[in-house]
Amino acid sequence: MATRISAGGTTYDVRRAARADVPAIVALLAADQIGASRDGGADLAPYERAFAAIDADPAQVLAVVTAPAGGAVVATLQLTVIPGLARRGSLRGQIEAVRVHEDLRGHGLGEALMTWAIDEARRRGCTLIQLTSDKRREDARRFYERLGFTASHEGFKLRVD
Amino acid sequence: MATRISAGGTTYDVRRAARADVPAIVALLAADQIGASRDGGADLAPYERAFAAIDADPAQVLAVVTAPAGGAVVATLQLTVIPGLARRGSLRGQIEAVRVHEDLRGHGLGEALMTWAIDEARRRGCTLIQLTSDKRREDARRFYERLGFTASHEGFKLRVD
Repeated sequence: MATRISAGGTTYDVRRAARADVPAIVALLAADQIGASRDGGADLAPYERAFAAIDADPAQVLAVVTAPAGGAVVATLQLTVIPGLARRGSLRGQIEAVRVHEDLRGHGLGEALMTWAIDEARRRGCTLIQLTSDKRREDARRFYERLGFTASHEGFKLRVD
Repeated sequence: MATRISAGGTTYDVRRAARADVPAIVALLAADQIGASRDGGADLAPYERAFAAIDADPAQVLAVVTAPAGGAVVATLQLTVIPGLARRGSLRGQIEAVRVHEDLRGHGLGEALMTWAIDEARRRGCTLIQLTSDKRREDARRFYERLGFTASHEGFKLRVD
């Protein structure tokens, strides 16, 4: 299902992640300032187990963006389609783990990937797209508002590990 | 999988919703001040289709709380277990559509139901529980903070219907 997106005059491929992409996705998660302490390291086994669960679940789309030269993974996000009774039994699309390689930020690649994900969620029948963003990510609010999102909700988290 | 929860000196049953509970759950959604315009009405068909999708998906737990006398549905919530690569491939439990009948608010029933849901998510291996709450729900913040949640994130929504 590879499609093309454009940002900063460059064309990238977006496709469903394959198992071989797991190390590159983990590197993007580990490079993130807020998530750095939570991810990375040499042991890929828990990530490969999680990838298998994601890949087997038709409600999940783990997407990667690859660079035109060499095909390196430069961005990722996960879309989850959630059925519910509210809003007349509508589907909601939830986006998690949006990451863009730091060398490619500020050129519209994140925006192009999000636009792709919104279209993909709509194509799957979602009528609402939702995501949460850590309040410490100061640029994120403007980024999501530019895409049409409204910060109408509080995002509550509870760690239970 | 009925279990018991206690609130205000009364014992209630919590169980997985059955198709016959759909009208009662829709009534709770429609009675909600913010959701009132979005839900309710005589046409249950879209809700029954959504219920079938939820019920067939092992990642979903649509729960109802029933009153001891008569077994009326007095509260509901939906738990979704989402696999992901972040946090070393951990599962997150997401809670949506938390509703308690207005006659039973203020007696700890919502808190007892949420505690049940957190335990259920932990039992299924989740290490993080998350939910969003409309910023117009002024009491919700205190409610979730009492349960241990932190409002660390902005909750962004985008309607695409």
